Amino acid sequence: MTMTIEEQVHQLGRQALEASRKLALLTADDKNRILSFMADELVAKESTILEANARDLAAAEERGLSSAMLDRLRLDSKRVRAIADGIRQVASLPNPVGEILEEWERPNGMRIQKKRVPIGVIGIIYESRPNVTSDAAVLCFKTSNATILRGGSEAFYSNTAIAAALQEGGMRAGLPEHSIQLIPFTDRESVRHMAQMDQYLDLIIPRGGKNLIETVVSLARMPVIKHYDGVCHTYIDKSAELEMAKAITVNAKTHKPSVCNALETLLVHSDIAAEFYADTGEALLAAGVELRGDTRLQAALGDRVLPATDDDWTAEYLDLILAVKTVDSMDEAIGHINAYGSHHSDCIVTADAAAAEKFLAEIDSATVFWNVSTRFSDGEEFGFGAEIGISTDKLHARGPMALKELTSYKYLVRGTGQIR
Amino acid sequence: MTMTIEEQVHQLGRQALEASRKLALLTADDKNRILSFMADELVAKESTILEANARDLAAAEERGLSSAMLDRLRLDSKRVRAIADGIRQVASLPNPVGEILEEWERPNGMRIQKKRVPIGVIGIIYESRPNVTSDAAVLCFKTSNATILRGGSEAFYSNTAIAAALQEGGMRAGLPEHSIQLIPFTDRESVRHMAQMDQYLDLIIPRGGKNLIETVVSLARMPVIKHYDGVCHTYIDKSAELEMAKAITVNAKTHKPSVCNALETLLVHSDIAAEFYADTGEALLAAGVELRGDTRLQAALGDRVLPATDDDWTAEYLDLILAVKTVDSMDEAIGHINAYGSHHSDCIVTADAAAAEKFLAEIDSATVFWNVSTRFSDGEEFGFGAEIGISTDKLHARGPMALKELTSYKYLVRGTGQIR
Repeated sequence: MTMTIEEQVHQLGRQALEASRKLALLTADDKNRILSFMADELVAKESTILEANARDLAAAEERGLSSAMLDRLRLDSKRVRAIADGIRQVASLPNPVGEILEEWERPNGMRIQKKRVPIGVIGIIYESRPNVTSDAAVLCFKTSNATILRGGSEAFYSNTAIAAALQEGGMRAGLPEHSIQLIPFTDRESVRHMAQMDQYLDLIIPRGGKNLIETVVSLARMPVIKHYDGVCHTYIDKSAELEMAKAITVNAKTHKPSVCNALETLLVHSDIAAEFYADTGEALLAAGVELRGDTRLQAALGDRVLPATDDDWTAEYLDLILAVKTVDSMDEAIGHINAYGSHHSDCIVTADAAAAEKFLAEIDSATVFWNVSTRFSDGEEFGFGAEIGISTDKLHARGPMALKELTSYKYLVRGTGQIR
Repeated sequence: MTMTIEEQVHQLGRQALEASRKLALLTADDKNRILSFMADELVAKESTILEANARDLAAAEERGLSSAMLDRLRLDSKRVRAIADGIRQVASLPNPVGEILEEWERPNGMRIQKKRVPIGVIGIIYESRPNVTSDAAVLCFKTSNATILRGGSEAFYSNTAIAAALQEGGMRAGLPEHSIQLIPFTDRESVRHMAQMDQYLDLIIPRGGKNLIETVVSLARMPVIKHYDGVCHTYIDKSAELEMAKAITVNAKTHKPSVCNALETLLVHSDIAAEFYADTGEALLAAGVELRGDTRLQAALGDRVLPATDDDWTAEYLDLILAVKTVDSMDEAIGHINAYGSHHSDCIVTADAAAAEKFLAEIDSATVFWNVSTRFSDGEEFGFGAEIGISTDKLHARGPMALKELTSYKYLVRGTGQIR
């Protein structure tokens, strides 16, 4: 066989489209039964998956990957079982497909229904973590979409073993062939071909670093739903309860600094800045947070504060570093957030309801919080039961994305011979 | 001033983003008052607009544009008033912005609201018809979006005069400056710069021929909502009432053949083909329709039928031409439509409810009709009160697009100091 990479990717596309037609006709019970077979097969194939993972790990160690990277890549019995439990959890969620979103009748007697349907074929392009193979494919399957997965090269054997287990286990319970396909090579060219084949792919979701997302956005002919970055702000209003402000600030910065909903820039009203900095500033330093701030923060904490530069206002540190700016009004805070933020998640701490409502109205972000840590910007915390990502886009899906965001709709019009 | 085209387009982008922040804060009453000022100003500026239009028409005649093109371009007093009436009609529609789409409380006491908000800045790239300047800008404004308009070169002076009237009339009633901006030149380069500036533009809607749409899709970094084409089908089932089938077929093909929801391919079940062709085939020929079909159609109508080729199955004629295929089963019809259609609007005519429901479920199109002419695939006919286009995409908006489809949402989370 001498198919080019392009031909091979297109073949996967054709096969996925064909599978998507069959997936659209599965009932909720069909799908949940298939999911339970997938979970069982994943557990049954644990040793195969761990062998494949060992192969990836050996290659990664040889290439000198960092211990953090190796940890992201590593599977063990507990992690395989956690992936299987995740599948069973998705099976327990309600099936959104087929829901009638609206219905009405027109004066001429036509009855119109707007019905939730699958999107069709979804491409997922991701890096390092092999659990994404299952997490993403399973959410797409629950919403009756076919998936084409393109994982990172460092997890190639792990991803292949997981995808095979899902497809094989599922097929024993009636999963259409080619519903879940992994691209069998990991060069950059396959990303380009995926991004161009809008005749087969309805949507691409890139999950990974900025370079990957930038590449997909530049190349893609079909819609892309993406998460660029999380430059999350907390604004401490002059009317904030300072104990609450301290608790929210420390939590949002230190609870899990490596994630997208962690706090990156703190804005503090000048009226309460001195008092707030003296207490919360000390608490942040004590928690090991590096502070980068202005002269007013330095006045409170001295040379334990580094001077902030313009680059700090757009930085997503994902680390125990915090940019701090003193503002003289809420309008200044709102202007700063809308200009420098990433429109992901931003918070106001205040006891003044009118100020809070103004902030909620004027901040142009996916999630705006009042007196709540930005760490709650999360599909599970929102009660969605699952999350495929957090969109920083405004079209189709914004903020935490779960099952409904993996669906489209169509109009069904029933009549009795109406003509114009 | 020596700004490059790119710098000028970016300046429009920055200004539009700034305007969009102010637009988001307008109330429904504010907006409706502004719309009524816009309509009044358009009527007051009729002579200016008609002079500008005369300049476009003279240039177009010189360049030898077809009389159909000249007619699309031409404005007169009646057409200007119709544009103004369209604005008043949009003012009378409900304001979708601010609607609470969902709200719930989490076990930790956080209250989450999903609120409908504007998209932000929308780019509209369109051709010839100057009324689009007003129609598109006004629908985007009603949903509190800023617009950057890039019209066709042949309507440049007309578009400029209309956009100026909207902006000037609106500003007297409080429209933020730069809410409606027309790109002041019509070369291809400006399309490229618009399509690339995703730092300012949240969405591009191209309205025009395939070349324009293809250009935008290839270049755009932001979401594009588009209408590729309308290869609409009607399938006459073996259980169809043949009089109804005839009426629907003739209506869908001949009522307005130049539009996207007109019938292009007719599929007929072999059991009733001979009888149906003898009657409906004659009616279509009598209405001046050129038929391109298979041997079974030729058997009924002889050499008045041209042989159909493979190209006919994907053709959007927009003319009095109809491709006809005899099928031996509904599955064959469904397979044909899903493979060759444009996923726009397709119809089954049948008295068999089970057959209809199967067709409605399996056809992967924006609108699927049962016993209704495809000509009803239209925002006005659906009761939306307005239409900015019909999307053949599946993400964000599918099928007839009106005001709701020009909005996004954000999550507002109110709490009492929740931390993780």
